[in-house]
Amino acid sequence: MTEFPLTLAAYREAYASGSLTPKDAVREVYRRIAAHGDPAIFITLRPEAEVAADAETLPAGPLHGIPVAVKDNIDVAGLPTTCACPDYAAVAASDAEVVARLRRAGALVIGKTNLDQFATGLVGVRSPYGVPRNTLDPALVPGGSSSGSAVAVAAGLVPLALGTDTAGSGRVPAGLNAIVGLKPTLGAISTRGVVPACRTLDCVSVFALTVEDAFDAFTALAGFDAADPFSRPVPVGQPGPSVLRVGVPDAASRRFAGDALSEAAFDLGLADLEALGATLIPVDLAPFFATAALLYDGPWVAERWEAIRPLITARPEALHPVTRAITERAAAFSAADAFAGRYRLAELRRATEPVWAGLDALCVPTFPRPQPLAALAADPIGPNAELGTYTNFVNLLDLCALSVPARPRADGLPAGVTLIAPAGRDAALVPLGGALHRAGGATMGATGACPPPAPDPGPPRAASDEIELAVVGAHLSGLPLNGELTALGARCLRAVETTPDYRLFALPGAGPRRPGLVRVAAGAGTSIATEVWALAPEAFGRFVAAIPAPLGIGTLRLADGTTPKGFLCEPEGVREAEDVSHHGGWRAYLAAGRAAVQPA
Amino acid sequence: MTEFPLTLAAYREAYASGSLTPKDAVREVYRRIAAHGDPAIFITLRPEAEVAADAETLPAGPLHGIPVAVKDNIDVAGLPTTCACPDYAAVAASDAEVVARLRRAGALVIGKTNLDQFATGLVGVRSPYGVPRNTLDPALVPGGSSSGSAVAVAAGLVPLALGTDTAGSGRVPAGLNAIVGLKPTLGAISTRGVVPACRTLDCVSVFALTVEDAFDAFTALAGFDAADPFSRPVPVGQPGPSVLRVGVPDAASRRFAGDALSEAAFDLGLADLEALGATLIPVDLAPFFATAALLYDGPWVAERWEAIRPLITARPEALHPVTRAITERAAAFSAADAFAGRYRLAELRRATEPVWAGLDALCVPTFPRPQPLAALAADPIGPNAELGTYTNFVNLLDLCALSVPARPRADGLPAGVTLIAPAGRDAALVPLGGALHRAGGATMGATGACPPPAPDPGPPRAASDEIELAVVGAHLSGLPLNGELTALGARCLRAVETTPDYRLFALPGAGPRRPGLVRVAAGAGTSIATEVWALAPEAFGRFVAAIPAPLGIGTLRLADGTTPKGFLCEPEGVREAEDVSHHGGWRAYLAAGRAAVQPA
Repeated sequence: MTEFPLTLAAYREAYASGSLTPKDAVREVYRRIAAHGDPAIFITLRPEAEVAADAETLPAGPLHGIPVAVKDNIDVAGLPTTCACPDYAAVAASDAEVVARLRRAGALVIGKTNLDQFATGLVGVRSPYGVPRNTLDPALVPGGSSSGSAVAVAAGLVPLALGTDTAGSGRVPAGLNAIVGLKPTLGAISTRGVVPACRTLDCVSVFALTVEDAFDAFTALAGFDAADPFSRPVPVGQPGPSVLRVGVPDAASRRFAGDALSEAAFDLGLADLEALGATLIPVDLAPFFATAALLYDGPWVAERWEAIRPLITARPEALHPVTRAITERAAAFSAADAFAGRYRLAELRRATEPVWAGLDALCVPTFPRPQPLAALAADPIGPNAELGTYTNFVNLLDLCALSVPARPRADGLPAGVTLIAPAGRDAALVPLGGALHRAGGATMGATGACPPPAPDPGPPRAASDEIELAVVGAHLSGLPLNGELTALGARCLRAVETTPDYRLFALPGAGPRRPGLVRVAAGAGTSIATEVWALAPEAFGRFVAAIPAPLGIGTLRLADGTTPKGFLCEPEGVREAEDVSHHGGWRAYLAAGRAAVQPA
Repeated sequence: MTEFPLTLAAYREAYASGSLTPKDAVREVYRRIAAHGDPAIFITLRPEAEVAADAETLPAGPLHGIPVAVKDNIDVAGLPTTCACPDYAAVAASDAEVVARLRRAGALVIGKTNLDQFATGLVGVRSPYGVPRNTLDPALVPGGSSSGSAVAVAAGLVPLALGTDTAGSGRVPAGLNAIVGLKPTLGAISTRGVVPACRTLDCVSVFALTVEDAFDAFTALAGFDAADPFSRPVPVGQPGPSVLRVGVPDAASRRFAGDALSEAAFDLGLADLEALGATLIPVDLAPFFATAALLYDGPWVAERWEAIRPLITARPEALHPVTRAITERAAAFSAADAFAGRYRLAELRRATEPVWAGLDALCVPTFPRPQPLAALAADPIGPNAELGTYTNFVNLLDLCALSVPARPRADGLPAGVTLIAPAGRDAALVPLGGALHRAGGATMGATGACPPPAPDPGPPRAASDEIELAVVGAHLSGLPLNGELTALGARCLRAVETTPDYRLFALPGAGPRRPGLVRVAAGAGTSIATEVWALAPEAFGRFVAAIPAPLGIGTLRLADGTTPKGFLCEPEGVREAEDVSHHGGWRAYLAAGRAAVQPA
């Protein structure tokens, strides 16, 4: 073993090369936990020997041999689930579905992490098991509610940890410890076996040191669970090309609580975004903030109360006094109030929908400013609320989010940003998130290391749920029918020639001039220029249905070895057409001045 | 004018022939209203002269000149909206969106109809404006809450009326008056300008004398309304072929309150279903009934309270005593209860989902038995609850429903059935619903007339949101690849030959033998047998993406004049293939024994 791995990718490489075994990894993880010396991270740490024994019989899988910490509101069979409330604790009889998936993927669960009691606060300090130390500055709150999981990853103890996120618990502690927090689309990862905070808003979240690691883990853990009434069939997809149209808070929507250093760091992050090729579009966040207020001051707190109804009814003194005070506000809300809140949320969702028409993602600060522990002495509630400024609205609006470390502040304190997209577009945030992390120069948590270069994505390919289509004529970029593709949400992947087995004909007829491509005997033709586009199946179906004779869709052979769907022409259609193959493509033929756009 | 029209179709015909004008229609409608002599149907009837003036300047549209009654919880500009509560009444400043659509479609709004106060009860009698007389038997309750609208249609006063439906208000009164009640998918018709009962469950419903009329009106009124937070983009679709797999209550799920006549009538209706070609599949309705109980005994009543919060708080005595007693039960439910109800509903929805995998529709009685007015004297609540047995669960489970008059009971009292399908499948219920109405011999309400024959649907064609695909080889019914089509939900529409412009080749290669179709010069080929299938765009896209070279999809020319998408083959692929065109089709070629299925 040369250098101990930090990331999932490095673990995999070390295992593959034989320089590390899962048993070695367990030993080193426990050594690091001891060396880090923060007893408040884990509520239950499994005995090292037990985990080492597990390491002998791990299934192959995408998380083979990866040590993982699990937030202590998620059931792990045989371990107590405390939710940071000793009086609530009970040993779990079985794994939560997400933990079962962790195990099936080959991961090593090493223990249960501390949290803000019942996943209530974003400060991460309300726990009788102590306050996990912020890994970047011990004077700061660790962030919560998933404080232990975030700190365990940021300290380099484990490369992966599970949190949960209802109001920002998977993003705020990531931002405060300069790691990555992926808050997936609601229902993408099963919440069966997770103690609810607000069941209609809860999700399991992923902490990792890099965006790619977080997405890898998400891919391994996501999947429809028919036994979870809030599970949804969310296609995970593959990261496509980087998103380009990024909404950012407009002047009136910037909220930094007067903290100039945090604001300046955010502006540097926006400059990075632009340098990465994104177009920044100012967005009025008023309806988003109004939604956040609904969570904070509205009836959803009754979900928290309902989740622990027997305990809070019988023994309210068992709760942390701040958690209790917050949760008991539920009593102020009637069922009518709950429905009224739902109506207001429906209105606000509708009000935010038009924003997404022109955007691929929103980019906001993860929090207005980092909060010192000292601030909580004076006011245990206010700083907590401020931390949720940019996170509270996300789950209510059914959005997904990715919190990444961006440019640190000038004084070195953390200043993360969060990318946000509509439900189901988790994968779309990955390329920009990774690039932003790398561009900002932020380390991976407190490890001192910067993220390794992004893995080479290879030539652009369609996502797993898309279909590749090679176009050769009037649908090429800039030509008259290209708008049919873009109107269907298609995106251009690459320009590639066919193999030299085709002939291209200029078809007669009115309207935009169109070519017909016909395959001939192998090697007896010409290489013809194509563009390969990616379309969703429904868009592809509609596109094919609209193609007029003599054109059709078959399978093309391209020079890069791929065989996407593509335009072909019936032989009868080219019987009297001009063979223009020697131009090597339709655009070259048009440029040669042989064709004029005929009047429609 | 020879015979005054009853149905929308007859109105259109009369207008087209010139035998009737909208002004004539207005005169006759008012004459009929007077002759029918039930002062409890309308709360506000517009002056005849005013409506006659409207009739002079009607826009062209799908409801041109159709007199319509509107339930008095739906705003019509300039008329009071009372909800059958005089103290609530206020003149509407503008039309509800659905009324605006009525007018744009050319309809004549003649007045506002009586209802069970605030759309609360299924009996239809709780109104200070009197009790509309059941059109079939004055001893029966009219059914509610849309009592006035249903009775106006059943009496033949107007061919169309709007109701609303939260728990069955658009179905129960239809069943009790032997007319058609279409309760669309939630969100398909805007509820903007409708006084809510339960906003999360409300929809506007349609009463008509025939299924086809109801669906015509639904098509004219449906459409996404961005200003209504509960509106959804629901494709209306076109009625396809009749549904075949129909779930019916299993032995333990039959609830007729011991009424043998009603049960016998339902069984005759089921026999009609089977005679119409449906396969009846017994279904355990336990999770559906559990859902219904949730509506009746659960926190949703708080939505009703919230809808009239100012009135019921300030002047509860303004309400009908029974309506008030029901609505004030809301006080018993906390916000936590409201969320707990939502969780339970999510579980029950999940529990009912598997049922739909094997069914095209459910068929249930509209109500267990008709209720006499006299029964309410003893118990104003119980008979009301019983009427909702088969309706209360529908909106909570996001289903659509069509209540149709089926076989009357042996004593002549009404015994409707309701067809139910998942959200968005409204159109799919139309053909079977219409056939069932006609098969049972029920009249159209109290008009004495039976429904006219169903309009000729013409040769089977794909619905407007489907794509037609002609297959010529291994995808034909019964051949090895046909399962690829059925797995995608495709349905066979018709068998048609191509025009005589094609040649068919037997392709070489392993796997199931496949032909290649190539178009040749017009008239220089053969007519080849095809089957035309209908696929949804996404299914079509996936299907096309999976087709291997040298096959592809182009446009075929068929003998019936249609030009669907269809299988074609690259000319290079048939260069060395056997020409089997003289067989006239792939099936005939296989039958001729020339081809054996090669080992895979």
